Amino acid sequence: MGSSFGRIFRLTTWGESHGPALGVVVEGCPAGIPLATGDIQLQLDRRRVGQSKVTSPRNEKDRAEILSGVFEGVTTGAPISMITYNADVDSSKYEAIRDIFRPGHADYTYWMKYGHRDHRGGGRSSARETWGRVAAGAIARKILAHQGCEVYGFVRELGGIQMQTFDRDEIERNLVRCPDPVAAEQMVEAIGAAKADNDSLGGVVEVRSTGTPVGLGEPVYDKLDALIGQAMLSIPAVKAVEIGEGFAVTRKRGSESNDGFTVENGRVRTLTNNAGGTLGGLSTGEDIIVRIAVKPTSSVAKPQQTVDKNLNAQTIVVEGRHDPSVCPRAVPVAEAMLAIVLADLTLLNRAARIDWPGEPPD
Amino acid sequence: MGSSFGRIFRLTTWGESHGPALGVVVEGCPAGIPLATGDIQLQLDRRRVGQSKVTSPRNEKDRAEILSGVFEGVTTGAPISMITYNADVDSSKYEAIRDIFRPGHADYTYWMKYGHRDHRGGGRSSARETWGRVAAGAIARKILAHQGCEVYGFVRELGGIQMQTFDRDEIERNLVRCPDPVAAEQMVEAIGAAKADNDSLGGVVEVRSTGTPVGLGEPVYDKLDALIGQAMLSIPAVKAVEIGEGFAVTRKRGSESNDGFTVENGRVRTLTNNAGGTLGGLSTGEDIIVRIAVKPTSSVAKPQQTVDKNLNAQTIVVEGRHDPSVCPRAVPVAEAMLAIVLADLTLLNRAARIDWPGEPPD
Amino acid sequence: MGSSFGRIFRLTTWGESHGPALGVVVEGCPAGIPLATGDIQLQLDRRRVGQSKVTSPRNEKDRAEILSGVFEGVTTGAPISMITYNADVDSSKYEAIRDIFRPGHADYTYWMKYGHRDHRGGGRSSARETWGRVAAGAIARKILAHQGCEVYGFVRELGGIQMQTFDRDEIERNLVRCPDPVAAEQMVEAIGAAKADNDSLGGVVEVRSTGTPVGLGEPVYDKLDALIGQAMLSIPAVKAVEIGEGFAVTRKRGSESNDGFTVENGRVRTLTNNAGGTLGGLSTGEDIIVRIAVKPTSSVAKPQQTVDKNLNAQTIVVEGRHDPSVCPRAVPVAEAMLAIVLADLTLLNRAARIDWPGEPPD
Amino acid sequence: MGSSFGRIFRLTTWGESHGPALGVVVEGCPAGIPLATGDIQLQLDRRRVGQSKVTSPRNEKDRAEILSGVFEGVTTGAPISMITYNADVDSSKYEAIRDIFRPGHADYTYWMKYGHRDHRGGGRSSARETWGRVAAGAIARKILAHQGCEVYGFVRELGGIQMQTFDRDEIERNLVRCPDPVAAEQMVEAIGAAKADNDSLGGVVEVRSTGTPVGLGEPVYDKLDALIGQAMLSIPAVKAVEIGEGFAVTRKRGSESNDGFTVENGRVRTLTNNAGGTLGGLSTGEDIIVRIAVKPTSSVAKPQQTVDKNLNAQTIVVEGRHDPSVCPRAVPVAEAMLAIVLADLTLLNRAARIDWPGEPPD
Repeated sequence: MGSSFGRIFRLTTWGESHGPALGVVVEGCPAGIPLATGDIQLQLDRRRVGQSKVTSPRNEKDRAEILSGVFEGVTTGAPISMITYNADVDSSKYEAIRDIFRPGHADYTYWMKYGHRDHRGGGRSSARETWGRVAAGAIARKILAHQGCEVYGFVRELGGIQMQTFDRDEIERNLVRCPDPVAAEQMVEAIGAAKADNDSLGGVVEVRSTGTPVGLGEPVYDKLDALIGQAMLSIPAVKAVEIGEGFAVTRKRGSESNDGFTVENGRVRTLTNNAGGTLGGLSTGEDIIVRIAVKPTSSVAKPQQTVDKNLNAQTIVVEGRHDPSVCPRAVPVAEAMLAIVLADLTLLNRAARIDWPGEPPD
Repeated sequence: MGSSFGRIFRLTTWGESHGPALGVVVEGCPAGIPLATGDIQLQLDRRRVGQSKVTSPRNEKDRAEILSGVFEGVTTGAPISMITYNADVDSSKYEAIRDIFRPGHADYTYWMKYGHRDHRGGGRSSARETWGRVAAGAIARKILAHQGCEVYGFVRELGGIQMQTFDRDEIERNLVRCPDPVAAEQMVEAIGAAKADNDSLGGVVEVRSTGTPVGLGEPVYDKLDALIGQAMLSIPAVKAVEIGEGFAVTRKRGSESNDGFTVENGRVRTLTNNAGGTLGGLSTGEDIIVRIAVKPTSSVAKPQQTVDKNLNAQTIVVEGRHDPSVCPRAVPVAEAMLAIVLADLTLLNRAARIDWPGEPPD
Repeated sequence: MGSSFGRIFRLTTWGESHGPALGVVVEGCPAGIPLATGDIQLQLDRRRVGQSKVTSPRNEKDRAEILSGVFEGVTTGAPISMITYNADVDSSKYEAIRDIFRPGHADYTYWMKYGHRDHRGGGRSSARETWGRVAAGAIARKILAHQGCEVYGFVRELGGIQMQTFDRDEIERNLVRCPDPVAAEQMVEAIGAAKADNDSLGGVVEVRSTGTPVGLGEPVYDKLDALIGQAMLSIPAVKAVEIGEGFAVTRKRGSESNDGFTVENGRVRTLTNNAGGTLGGLSTGEDIIVRIAVKPTSSVAKPQQTVDKNLNAQTIVVEGRHDPSVCPRAVPVAEAMLAIVLADLTLLNRAARIDWPGEPPD
Repeated sequence: MGSSFGRIFRLTTWGESHGPALGVVVEGCPAGIPLATGDIQLQLDRRRVGQSKVTSPRNEKDRAEILSGVFEGVTTGAPISMITYNADVDSSKYEAIRDIFRPGHADYTYWMKYGHRDHRGGGRSSARETWGRVAAGAIARKILAHQGCEVYGFVRELGGIQMQTFDRDEIERNLVRCPDPVAAEQMVEAIGAAKADNDSLGGVVEVRSTGTPVGLGEPVYDKLDALIGQAMLSIPAVKAVEIGEGFAVTRKRGSESNDGFTVENGRVRTLTNNAGGTLGGLSTGEDIIVRIAVKPTSSVAKPQQTVDKNLNAQTIVVEGRHDPSVCPRAVPVAEAMLAIVLADLTLLNRAARIDWPGEPPD
């Protein structure tokens, strides 16, 4: 259970890090959307490793094949199955930890839950699963684009270094996806230093949507906020999520935190956006703003105290080709999850009113 | 859509703040659990207003009736329907805001989504809906208790005042549910001051579980973390959620944030609990630790800038009997949501292994 | 589990035959539909007992109260909760069968599954649960009417007596809801004879839709046929369902059973309707035609061989006020289920195409 | 939507008849089940065409690859993805019918629903999708076998020829899977005659389970009967389903149709099994008995009246390599669906009682 996400636009991912292949099936994508492998690969290339010195040197081509649901370049409404075959897989290194639980990893909990697990590269718990999210997210982006909505993200803080300036154009120009080129340089250095010290760094990733339609979200439990919460906390290594001002809003007074309403070009707008684009769990039309806490990579080559399956104490040093910080690669994954939530809610919203699509009410 | 939560243990709430009644239907509760109205009322009484000078003076008795699913004091496996009739409802005050959008409320977004809404007391978007969560949570607690698991919560910070000491026994002794009696007193004062100033305060609520079974959570999208994220961000006024160290973990290095393993009384334990009781989205057996950001109450009697349905600018002063801070009352609601998530995952976990319940693997 | 039905338009029923009340919560009803208690009661009155000499003499008023989801006479998009309090309940007669399994009833299977059950009047397995289906169906009918679609049903065969003529206007004129007044009279007599003999009769009920939109149904597992199958076989006492020609089509050749296409008034029509209005699991626009087999009432006052909880042999005579044939009352229930399936698929269909609602393709 | 089936044991199929591949993802399979490709292939080989003169001469090897969810020969609890690449695909013959609607096929309804479709070989509506059902069913059988439950099926009637004797061992010995070797021979002849006449035949397939656990099924809408109804009517060409006596029970009296209870070897049994193994929607422990009506193959090489996309009248002759009757191949598909329903309900049943697995109640 748990490998599916979404109500109408629904993805199911499958595959293990060191299995023969992994993939995703996207159900509920509407018919009539032009879709090519290039649309998918564009996003997957942003996620894959081996892009730079700040990421793992593994060589995953991550090439997507579309196996169904698209005919003559256009979606048909049938499930879209996408697959990538695992290459450059070296499982031998994992043999040593077959019976030992790596701190910070799912080894112990999977073993207790299932009694039997694929220990190679984390198996099902590997972040390699996010391949399917990014592939599905590329399709979700198409649904959003159809209505003028777009999603983007960046690294806000890494290893304690915070961005000080914001230039959206800078994001994809540097190795860490930071909109502040100065901070970006410091982050790259910090990653290098942590790596040299056999250690790893965490950080804060922010994702936003622009051109967001009003009214997305389903009260009460499928509030936009709630689904974003599920989506973000389902990403490996994410331990917190905040929307709009998030924790900072708890130190404001109500009169400060409320976003007043105004009219701009005949459309209702808020004067501020402390709420991060949601009210009562529905989108306001302002930018959705989400921040997530990404913990430092659990695989570190420093000795750590642990136990094995026979409950003997062990010291472990996790070797391998790991990202010293997953923040830069978490950006396209978090973007994908936000896009998927918004696309799903967009389709669901069509059932909200008997006269949909109707004029704005009066 | 969106009024249901849970996969096996599944609740559906219904009702508006100023409608005749509201309630909850709980599906998937196993048969064989002793259940009395008193079990439910105990928790509901912790949620209701009118408890003290720090909460709203409304007089909601919130009395629960169990209408189905229990026979001769024991659950039957059939849906458990619980209802409370609204009393002390005064809708006349809302007539003035029928056409005006209150900042910080769902008025505008509901109007845009549905074109038609019950404006009285927030209608469906009212926090009064949480009655059903707490009632359902009382049943979830029974399922948890059956395996020695318990949930509790408290106010960690309110209006910027942070707790400095922790004594679990203090929590229910003071008006704000703070485990630090000194901070509690300051919080009460701060609430009084904000109220006198026609304003409101936010804060941070923490909930925990003890005696948590190992292995709860379903990879990948129904990770324990992810469902907690959805559950908490579905609570009105909650704008952020963190698990374990949350955002603070982003400033640690991997070697610091990883929780090493050890063996204690023949059982695997972690040396620290930075992860807040989850690894790879499954419970580790350590306490689950969750913190949520509660925004200051949106209804404030200070003038605020807004617009009406005709897009005319308006100034609004929201009168009414509102909690100057909902943090103390958010405690039982957040507890209920955590209990519901854990109970649901407990039942789902029974399908994880063909030989369930089996011995711990070896 | 299992008390909910539907994907978007989703009902959850609750309540036992001899509990204090029973009800239904309808989620996913679009906003903007005029809805009054009278709309609901109209259908409920067609279902209730005590209508005539062919039904049980119990006096259930079955009065519906709408508790939520409707404001100023119009649906709001919030869950619609409807309730009826049980009256005229006499549980004392069931005391004698507390420990004995009635043949043809759920007594034994519930006891084995749950270990604890409400034995009074069948408890949760009582056909009284269908109250909520009919109430929800009345709302579904409104969604269908919005697009010119209507559902109706009738008794086709009862106690072996088959209708020979069809006049839709006759259906509600006679006690057994048969469109053939001559056959109707024979059926009434047959019911009387069976009753006098302490026995009961089964029959065949047919339901149809007119003005059905084209394209309702979701390939592959949520085909219109498949959802009708689930809906109909979830009705108590139903043991078979067929669509269009059903079993009879198995004796035709392909060239006979295929419905050829033609054009009528600029619209594609089929020359015949052997398929009963579906092709590939999607509606064709022709009338949906469904027939169900209703078994004879299980409660008969003839001695029957059975056992008790202690596995002792027993002879049982089931006394009580039971319908000698439930066929006439099964009509509004089957209609409701068809309406619910069609309404749900109507809403779901809005997500089928990116450009929905679009022109018919060309 | 609609490409998934099941609550806990849940399959999602994808792929088109003439696309590059098709497959199935099975979620919710418990960990710890030995599973090899051979287990899957065994069942797939029973489904594939080209087996004999009574089936299509197409050469589909239908070879299954397991891509995930199995490690060292044992299931891990992760999704099991299975794929087969389409071979021997010749789409050129379908070019002529790109714009013409074949009677009895989904061409018209898909076109109306989606506006864009893969017309080659029926695309998504092709019965080739059942490959994934049979593959998933092979896994479901393993779950059933774990508790001593087995599923089998056979052709009861074909082209009007009914079986007269029943010998289970005969079923797989003849080309039509009929347990009566004499009737089997007649059926083979009838198929040959229909084929020679460019026509096709329908029939009745029966599937049963033995060793069925008591209590499978979830009241009210997920009754075992109801899920069987959905499962069977989701199979292409199936137009009716009956359980136990089905339509025949409508001509019995209650005293005749009720199955009395007795005790046999310390276990409650029914004296007869008119109900087909269910009471109140839950399994009784007696054999589940299900019959389905399979319509004659829609593709016939006789001229038929139809229209094209421009609403012009057309005459069509559907050439191609089609089974003159799909009944023999429908057997493993229907078996698979019954196995899937029973496996899913088996897992779900673990949540029915707080003390599961408990002793039978007393």
